[in-house]
Amino acid sequence: MSTPAPRSRVLALSGGVGGAKLALGLARVLERDALDVVVNTGDDFRHLGLAISPDVDTLLYTLAGLADPVRGWGRCDETWHFMAALERLGGDTWFALGDADLALHVERSRRLAAGETPSAVTADFARRLGIDARIAPMSDDPVRTRVRSDDGWLDFQDYFVRRQCAPVLRELAYEGAGQARASSLLLDPAHDTALRAVVLCPSNPWLSIDPMLALPGVRAALAACPAPVVAVSPLVAGRAVKGPTAKLMRELGLAVDHASIARHYAGLVDALVVDAHEPGLDAGPGPRIVVAPTLMESLADRERLARTVLEAADRLPRKPHRSPAAGAAREARA
Amino acid sequence: MSTPAPRSRVLALSGGVGGAKLALGLARVLERDALDVVVNTGDDFRHLGLAISPDVDTLLYTLAGLADPVRGWGRCDETWHFMAALERLGGDTWFALGDADLALHVERSRRLAAGETPSAVTADFARRLGIDARIAPMSDDPVRTRVRSDDGWLDFQDYFVRRQCAPVLRELAYEGAGQARASSLLLDPAHDTALRAVVLCPSNPWLSIDPMLALPGVRAALAACPAPVVAVSPLVAGRAVKGPTAKLMRELGLAVDHASIARHYAGLVDALVVDAHEPGLDAGPGPRIVVAPTLMESLADRERLARTVLEAADRLPRKPHRSPAAGAAREARA
Repeated sequence: MSTPAPRSRVLALSGGVGGAKLALGLARVLERDALDVVVNTGDDFRHLGLAISPDVDTLLYTLAGLADPVRGWGRCDETWHFMAALERLGGDTWFALGDADLALHVERSRRLAAGETPSAVTADFARRLGIDARIAPMSDDPVRTRVRSDDGWLDFQDYFVRRQCAPVLRELAYEGAGQARASSLLLDPAHDTALRAVVLCPSNPWLSIDPMLALPGVRAALAACPAPVVAVSPLVAGRAVKGPTAKLMRELGLAVDHASIARHYAGLVDALVVDAHEPGLDAGPGPRIVVAPTLMESLADRERLARTVLEAADRLPRKPHRSPAAGAAREARA
Repeated sequence: MSTPAPRSRVLALSGGVGGAKLALGLARVLERDALDVVVNTGDDFRHLGLAISPDVDTLLYTLAGLADPVRGWGRCDETWHFMAALERLGGDTWFALGDADLALHVERSRRLAAGETPSAVTADFARRLGIDARIAPMSDDPVRTRVRSDDGWLDFQDYFVRRQCAPVLRELAYEGAGQARASSLLLDPAHDTALRAVVLCPSNPWLSIDPMLALPGVRAALAACPAPVVAVSPLVAGRAVKGPTAKLMRELGLAVDHASIARHYAGLVDALVVDAHEPGLDAGPGPRIVVAPTLMESLADRERLARTVLEAADRLPRKPHRSPAAGAAREARA
């Protein structure tokens, strides 16, 4: 009689900075090669003719130990001679590109133009940067998050970087998501009985996680997957650690609390890790609530939260395997 | 009775480093706005997806006071973080691109992709870099210098940079030159009675000047132009100051001396400035020989050679105006 293979693999869904911190924690506490990270590409855009994929880059730099620890984006020990020269030539300078960071964008653009897929380029970059985890863009097809504001529809980076999230957000759209083919890493969990957990990193649910959930079949695959799905709330002490999450929630008419996050992920996640209890949070039929420190300042914080998430997953009952078709049917009725 | 306008404008034809030195000298001794420089683009190529125009860039950097005085190419005070990061990502590193230099290539590529012409982009860059002289690529159409060697036909930068001019050169071709439209600055001299001189800078005649002469109408325009045409030999003390000129001349079966340069430019230039006399150099029907120091080490050297060239031009008799059609007819018979 053969023993079942240990359920060792973990799939993490991540946006940029906050998600990457937990992904790094997971990479450090898991065995080598046990972590797959699927990354939002709704923020991708063309700038100066270059293919820029901000969240993928943040994951690469973070897991390679190259991320700037203070700025929260880009590389550590970065220099800015390109930007200074570009400004003198009258080029667009609202999106900062460091000298070393540029290599990623130039080389990615070259390889995409030569016919490689974003997945292949990302996997090769990860290998060359010495990253053991598998990092994959959520899709090789273009998906573009757009923001309807009081100024009309805006491209994401226009809203996020150029306008510093100042416009009041009314609606979000993930253009192209309906026609895009999701990474197989997002669809495989439906059948993967060896998967230990699916982790929704503490990224902005609307800007970073929802673009992945909007890809055909992904909600169904996660709903059908036998492994527990654990999310970490991006709110700490009632606020977003970084970025526009709290402002966005208010503008969408939501209370800035874990209950809003729990409702957003209802039916999808089995447990939600939050930094502090809220009255009535675990009263309803929503996810199981796990209270634990979620602020990740040090590397030890990242590892501790990773262990918390894995332990929460391991304590949850395995779910019966359901076909993703049934999941899709539920999704269609929803 | 009106006095004729002073003949103040000078047109210089230039390749990269050596030519740019004299162009700088001319820019400094001439009145503001009196210098037009037309630059070889046969060395242009696409690298890493970027439109790179090495000779135009050298002219821009040199006339803006940004050129590296030691390397002979690129910018002074350059840094190389992009190249180091590119190497780590497995990118092509045989062509060095400095961090600040990259801005020129990225912004040019972006503007060309947006539909601007190389001439318009170059003129705008020159203006933004504070350059008074007009700098124009020899054509807005692609011309690509190629080298037939014992290894077969090679792209120019492959021969020049990647292989360091090591292959034995057998033949040169200027692909696209026959169909390219020359810059109007190269054709206007035929009619321009106010032009003081046309200067062929001490660039490599075969690699830097001939691509311009291969453009339709350019030889005829220079032959017809009333202004004197003065060339400066790129040889100093019987050798090339920099680059593969001497090796190339030997491989083409030519003696490495001013007489070979004089024969190459016969029928086109009225005077040739050389650093030292050679026996019999001015015996034939070739250009008038002017002996003067041509090594340009200091800024004063550049200015002195510029004055030498202008004085040589001013001493030559104005030529009768001939229609470029007659010139073209002569060219066709040659």
